[in-house]
Amino acid sequence: MGDGDDAPAPGTNPIPSVIAASSTAEVSVVLPCSIQDSQKESPLVVPCAIPAHQEAVQDRDYKFLSKAVDEAYKGVTCGDGGPFGAVVVRNNEVVVSCHNMVLRHTDPTAHAEVTAVREACKKLNRLELSDCEIFASCEPCPMCFGAIHLSRIKRLVYGAKAEAAIAVGFDDFIADAIRGTSYYQKANLEIKRADGSVAAIAEQVFTDTKELFKMY
Amino acid sequence: MGDGDDAPAPGTNPIPSVIAASSTAEVSVVLPCSIQDSQKESPLVVPCAIPAHQEAVQDRDYKFLSKAVDEAYKGVTCGDGGPFGAVVVRNNEVVVSCHNMVLRHTDPTAHAEVTAVREACKKLNRLELSDCEIFASCEPCPMCFGAIHLSRIKRLVYGAKAEAAIAVGFDDFIADAIRGTSYYQKANLEIKRADGSVAAIAEQVFTDTKELFKMY
Repeated sequence: MGDGDDAPAPGTNPIPSVIAASSTAEVSVVLPCSIQDSQKESPLVVPCAIPAHQEAVQDRDYKFLSKAVDEAYKGVTCGDGGPFGAVVVRNNEVVVSCHNMVLRHTDPTAHAEVTAVREACKKLNRLELSDCEIFASCEPCPMCFGAIHLSRIKRLVYGAKAEAAIAVGFDDFIADAIRGTSYYQKANLEIKRADGSVAAIAEQVFTDTKELFKMY
Repeated sequence: MGDGDDAPAPGTNPIPSVIAASSTAEVSVVLPCSIQDSQKESPLVVPCAIPAHQEAVQDRDYKFLSKAVDEAYKGVTCGDGGPFGAVVVRNNEVVVSCHNMVLRHTDPTAHAEVTAVREACKKLNRLELSDCEIFASCEPCPMCFGAIHLSRIKRLVYGAKAEAAIAVGFDDFIADAIRGTSYYQKANLEIKRADGSVAAIAEQVFTDTKELFKMY
């Protein structure tokens, strides 16, 4: 399930569709907006001198992403909505842990990420979450990606690729947000697509739950 | 303020970024999804044989779009949020008339269109609005466009172009939704950009209110 096949090679400076950190000693540096303006499509790729730090980041991401995946299962089990979860984290602490509430609230906008952004803002009593990260069990749809952008969340880590959701019948518009569109939204946000076992676990949500929820 | 300069000429079958109906005797026909799949980027453009009908559509659109513009002013006046309004219409009746509630609810997702979709679903007690239209005072941002798509609203009419909002300081990501991106979202939705006096009125909202609200 690794995504190493389309990861940028160090120093080649390609035009990646997402800024991905792999488990190898390589990291994509997201430049500040002012610097990045002239080269929005070409983040600087440098070899990472501190693989141990990378490993710690991987473990941390795994932990929070697993929580988002747990939420996805929980949402289906209790009939709240589709198999999607999202966790907002600030200073290594979970601010909110949410799942899709579309059926529960009869609200097509109550996706996991939108719900998480709304709840986190309510909890912190502020409009912006620039000191927060969001961990989503699946690649966010354009609406959710818009909500993440608007809240100024600094980092997005997601598990399953859109195709895994589309394969069980979800709307293929999910794939619109990150793949070569949404030019402005990508300027200030670090986006990491999980790889390895956590990506596999996140994608398994859909096959595990497809008999348990009604498509809407 | 007319947009005739970039409207497709009858029979030329270009690749328009929006499906626009102008006030002249010309109309873009949005094909059903099954037919449209093979030619998603090329809606059929035919001369309209019934200009009187077109005029009635213009008057009706003007009425509901004006209401959305009124909401935009109202939202700023009562301090609920930015100058954006949206009205959901079903069978020529207003279902809900909403404005931006971002400041009121400390919720960056409470844009006018998202709020209107949520409220309309709540009012009609169903998840989809396929028999409804939405009239938005301004071109919807990607989050709102996603919400409109997800609710299966059949028709979107908007007034101000994104540039009018961007000019007074709003996030330039607004322009991401309809301009050549969001491939899947455009498949089943008729999108009309207002022209003439109502477009001018809609764009004037921003210059009229820019001193009255705090940018967020």
